[in-house]
Amino acid sequence: MSIKIPKTQKVAIVASSGEDIQVKNDHPVKSQADLAPGECLVKLHCTGVCHTDLHAALGDWPLDAKTPLIGGHEGVGDIVAIGSHTSASPVKVGDRVGIKWLADSCLHCEQCRKGREQNCLDAKLSGFTVDGTFSEYVVSYVHHVTPIPEGLDSKEAASILCAGLTVYRALKYSQTNPGDWVVLPGAGGGLGHLAVQYAKYMGLRVIAVDSGEEKKKLCLDLGADHWIDFKECKDIVDSVTAATDGLGAHSVVITTPGSGYQEAVGYLRKGGTIMAVGLPGKATLDASIFFTVFKSISILGSYVGNRQDAIESLAIAACGGVKCHFSVKKLGDIQEVYKEFQKGTVAGRVVIDMAL
Amino acid sequence: MSIKIPKTQKVAIVASSGEDIQVKNDHPVKSQADLAPGECLVKLHCTGVCHTDLHAALGDWPLDAKTPLIGGHEGVGDIVAIGSHTSASPVKVGDRVGIKWLADSCLHCEQCRKGREQNCLDAKLSGFTVDGTFSEYVVSYVHHVTPIPEGLDSKEAASILCAGLTVYRALKYSQTNPGDWVVLPGAGGGLGHLAVQYAKYMGLRVIAVDSGEEKKKLCLDLGADHWIDFKECKDIVDSVTAATDGLGAHSVVITTPGSGYQEAVGYLRKGGTIMAVGLPGKATLDASIFFTVFKSISILGSYVGNRQDAIESLAIAACGGVKCHFSVKKLGDIQEVYKEFQKGTVAGRVVIDMAL
Amino acid sequence: MSIKIPKTQKVAIVASSGEDIQVKNDHPVKSQADLAPGECLVKLHCTGVCHTDLHAALGDWPLDAKTPLIGGHEGVGDIVAIGSHTSASPVKVGDRVGIKWLADSCLHCEQCRKGREQNCLDAKLSGFTVDGTFSEYVVSYVHHVTPIPEGLDSKEAASILCAGLTVYRALKYSQTNPGDWVVLPGAGGGLGHLAVQYAKYMGLRVIAVDSGEEKKKLCLDLGADHWIDFKECKDIVDSVTAATDGLGAHSVVITTPGSGYQEAVGYLRKGGTIMAVGLPGKATLDASIFFTVFKSISILGSYVGNRQDAIESLAIAACGGVKCHFSVKKLGDIQEVYKEFQKGTVAGRVVIDMAL
Amino acid sequence: MSIKIPKTQKVAIVASSGEDIQVKNDHPVKSQADLAPGECLVKLHCTGVCHTDLHAALGDWPLDAKTPLIGGHEGVGDIVAIGSHTSASPVKVGDRVGIKWLADSCLHCEQCRKGREQNCLDAKLSGFTVDGTFSEYVVSYVHHVTPIPEGLDSKEAASILCAGLTVYRALKYSQTNPGDWVVLPGAGGGLGHLAVQYAKYMGLRVIAVDSGEEKKKLCLDLGADHWIDFKECKDIVDSVTAATDGLGAHSVVITTPGSGYQEAVGYLRKGGTIMAVGLPGKATLDASIFFTVFKSISILGSYVGNRQDAIESLAIAACGGVKCHFSVKKLGDIQEVYKEFQKGTVAGRVVIDMAL
Repeated sequence: MSIKIPKTQKVAIVASSGEDIQVKNDHPVKSQADLAPGECLVKLHCTGVCHTDLHAALGDWPLDAKTPLIGGHEGVGDIVAIGSHTSASPVKVGDRVGIKWLADSCLHCEQCRKGREQNCLDAKLSGFTVDGTFSEYVVSYVHHVTPIPEGLDSKEAASILCAGLTVYRALKYSQTNPGDWVVLPGAGGGLGHLAVQYAKYMGLRVIAVDSGEEKKKLCLDLGADHWIDFKECKDIVDSVTAATDGLGAHSVVITTPGSGYQEAVGYLRKGGTIMAVGLPGKATLDASIFFTVFKSISILGSYVGNRQDAIESLAIAACGGVKCHFSVKKLGDIQEVYKEFQKGTVAGRVVIDMAL
Repeated sequence: MSIKIPKTQKVAIVASSGEDIQVKNDHPVKSQADLAPGECLVKLHCTGVCHTDLHAALGDWPLDAKTPLIGGHEGVGDIVAIGSHTSASPVKVGDRVGIKWLADSCLHCEQCRKGREQNCLDAKLSGFTVDGTFSEYVVSYVHHVTPIPEGLDSKEAASILCAGLTVYRALKYSQTNPGDWVVLPGAGGGLGHLAVQYAKYMGLRVIAVDSGEEKKKLCLDLGADHWIDFKECKDIVDSVTAATDGLGAHSVVITTPGSGYQEAVGYLRKGGTIMAVGLPGKATLDASIFFTVFKSISILGSYVGNRQDAIESLAIAACGGVKCHFSVKKLGDIQEVYKEFQKGTVAGRVVIDMAL
Repeated sequence: MSIKIPKTQKVAIVASSGEDIQVKNDHPVKSQADLAPGECLVKLHCTGVCHTDLHAALGDWPLDAKTPLIGGHEGVGDIVAIGSHTSASPVKVGDRVGIKWLADSCLHCEQCRKGREQNCLDAKLSGFTVDGTFSEYVVSYVHHVTPIPEGLDSKEAASILCAGLTVYRALKYSQTNPGDWVVLPGAGGGLGHLAVQYAKYMGLRVIAVDSGEEKKKLCLDLGADHWIDFKECKDIVDSVTAATDGLGAHSVVITTPGSGYQEAVGYLRKGGTIMAVGLPGKATLDASIFFTVFKSISILGSYVGNRQDAIESLAIAACGGVKCHFSVKKLGDIQEVYKEFQKGTVAGRVVIDMAL
Repeated sequence: MSIKIPKTQKVAIVASSGEDIQVKNDHPVKSQADLAPGECLVKLHCTGVCHTDLHAALGDWPLDAKTPLIGGHEGVGDIVAIGSHTSASPVKVGDRVGIKWLADSCLHCEQCRKGREQNCLDAKLSGFTVDGTFSEYVVSYVHHVTPIPEGLDSKEAASILCAGLTVYRALKYSQTNPGDWVVLPGAGGGLGHLAVQYAKYMGLRVIAVDSGEEKKKLCLDLGADHWIDFKECKDIVDSVTAATDGLGAHSVVITTPGSGYQEAVGYLRKGGTIMAVGLPGKATLDASIFFTVFKSISILGSYVGNRQDAIESLAIAACGGVKCHFSVKKLGDIQEVYKEFQKGTVAGRVVIDMAL
């Protein structure tokens, strides 16, 4: 199969940390001959935009992104070329695949050997340590691109590749049983509304915590069993405890940037788990050691997701188990999207359609 | 079997929080007729003294102890009476048993049903919510006293009942494999030197962290694989990392009152576990959320130990797997022991011999 | 509260192994004064009838039942008396409770301490080693009767107490993730149709295996994702493999009396689990050792369920997560029910209403 | 680095299933130019000989080996060449590495993604589906060769690479706690004597089962806590039960070719685990379903070991935790070794020194 690959493309790029993101039309595209063994070139249909992209652009994390940086780690597209001498590729030219935060891993360090390649000591991160999906073409890696199930729309799949898989993994490892109570702060947001659906799919009972009538309706429509408006609620610990037979919830998934760990230790039942997912640049865990120990609470760092998590979370979406709420934009809108992120006015996820 | 029980006894008692502990000779002993179903009276051979007893006496925890309070939760003695109408007792008059921190639990709440009776919603705590073992006779509970294995000296057993079982449980649930590296801050202390031995018994490799030549010798004699003197070491994160092939340790058991969580997140390898054991009254976890998540660190609250942990930790001691270093005192010395605790000058554990 | 307890009652009783079950109207009822500490008397609303009752009556298991025997282990009723000197009872007179196969356990042996009281070394078994629920009144045990959630009909609850909790526990411990494939042989039967519902509640994908149009319709209506009629299917291994992307299923719950282990090893994917639940008197596992090892298959004996499993499985039923299909009979019908069991003509579960 | 690679070499080869193994001096060696990306050429110091090699040569397994076949899967040697275009190799020319049964895996199928690459759907098996280590040079795979720790003798390492890692993995996943009892049938044999040592290293208590004074002495010297001579013992179930406080053992590792599953279900305590390791060609599990379920026994297929298991088992050997008993032979002796295997007269493991 021979696919014509242009020499240049449109991309959204940040020249250096803290500068505005700019759209450029003449960024070079890597040719097939320039792809290393194991690399593939993907022509993108669309890409999600994630708060993490803003962190990367602003440089407000304790780790440094490459610069200049093309962000983006929720891309879906078709493979149009694979590097020569690539051995045992699980994908081929023409396959529709997804690009997630974890662009590549070495597959042989201790973390990779243990099936935790998201913690690979030599991981490549899309839109952070390697260029990402805010572009028409992206270089990715045959062992890590994720096959997209037939019948799942590319734009539907995009947000699963980061927001979806991240909350899916957190819930999967939350040590809960069917029927257990899970608290989801930010339940009406981009990650939160997917978490509500994955949690219900697994048979968990959901306490959705967020604010406003619109988010309340969304959460309850998605199946949340209990709603708490944190702006109206006098005491979140009391409210969760009251909703859970006075015993407290079994788990909480903290995706929100603020902390919330101290109150989580308060409203969890003994033996409960805090799934630590959100990545604020500077905050500390701030919970009482005494009560963490006395109540036998587990705080489990859950960092994005690996290849298997991506496949599982997409399979559930393909079965209709979860459905993302997103708005569609074009690549030229991205500066504006970042501004809305900073104002906190974005509802649901944002997906950029490359055809627009 | 008829055993003569005196009407009064010698005890060490704290009248109200913060007051000095006093020895009294005329404290009443509960008679057989006064024992409720499920209660037993134990004539003590000896009892350990634990920092927790000092916390209870000082009232510096966020939970309140009963007052007046007879402290103590590391007792060994013989059962001399059992309450009438006790059904299905696993022990009988004449049995040698141990009394641990968890004096009794309901055996039917969710925590008890899940085998985590240390987190019972209606737990009775020796020397905290019920009178403990700083006395010649103590009322305890047939379902929770721990049979002491034959051949294990009562004074040897005493410190296992709190210090031993607490670190044993923490290590047992540390999610480590044989050959993995565990860091033990305070390795030369009362809990620490038992932790070194349990860790070696399980096939872990031990990094002992403490200070001074005497503790260094103790730790290395007990089998520690690597020693770090925290007063001499420039950077604990660098030192642990260097000792572990540059990858970091797999686990750390934090028994010490200060925090140490932030540096633990630094020197653990990705996917590592922090076993949170020590119970400072006010400190918070203080570790970076970012790195807890990014490195997929688990912080696991491990609260004392349950009946099964007590039996297992004693069985290992009875096999010679661990040996406690302790000094023997008499009950009249207890005020002085507390003062030494506050000065931090106690080496190893302290056991009070009731026959002295 | 004073409740009048009659001296005699109606029961269904088997005089000795292999004899017919007989209804008697003058069987004595234990008076409050005769209840031991920890015992309670339950006035039954209804009781399920289970194949296991027939095993017990026929004496075709390698363990012996008591004789004469009043069978039954799926009872729901109200507590009308509790033995004097019962300490710390979690239930009180007037509570509606369920009686399951595990009537009582010691709560202190190693199995009980580990939260596996169904394997208690001194377990009492309803309708097997102690008299069961084929009676108007039954003696049971305060620590083991299961509170029935408000709003759940007694007859609905009855079959959950054995059939439901048994398959619930098997699925809960099947080491599957949401989205995984589970095979349910006998999916249209008493245990099977509950298993289909619990599996769907947990987010599993279900391959229902059974025979006939009626059972097919039932299974698909309950949400089964794939149907295999074992009488029409040429090769069950091929059929399951084809339904699961050529890789095989992740788990199977074997509740049926025949073996099926060899074919299960065939149609599971590598690393899959066989949940061994059914209790045939004499059959052996009969699967190839070679392929069990080579495919890293786990065969996990899952014996009924414990107190926590009972509470969890009932809670899911109370939420509407599962609904039992049963026919209602009166106690006088029981001989006929046993005959239908032997002919294999019973559809769904059978519940005896004590008021009829 | 330029290393001279000869054109031909000495190998031991089986022309077709069931024929005698023959030594040939003129077998071709693959040149650097002929190595595919990801392949490496290893100049062997030595290789272990395993019963599995005999199975492969005889063709008595339900899976077919390649023919003609160069057997061997416990090799240690130096990398002398790596295929061109190999990307991200974790090893380099000059490294000392081990070759285990699992020669290569795809690293992207579901099994590989889950960290169970020994169950890879496209696994290459040394001395079975690809030529093995009964040769001076062997082609292997950069992602799967195992670095040998410094200070560990090559001949010591050889037997760890199959016998050691296989029993290590089985013990690691045996769901036992320190102090638990494990039964090791064949404890005095090649796998068994390593299992005794790994088990002791992990803090397990060992019941060694084998026959004869020499094996008894070996097992007790290696630290076994209890010895049972199966030829003298009247009833293995009674003997194990008596040795374990009447409760039975917690686990058994079945490496022996005969079955033993039925008696294992007998002598394990409730909740115990059978680690199924040995790979007889035709035998079935043959244990009672009733007691497997009633006692909640887990039968866990444990197939060789993966890259991580190999590294861990070698690290323990390098620390002195285990030491293999082996006899040294030359490649020309191999036909004779196979004959001794068939007679059952081999004590310990056999290692072929390529320099002899």
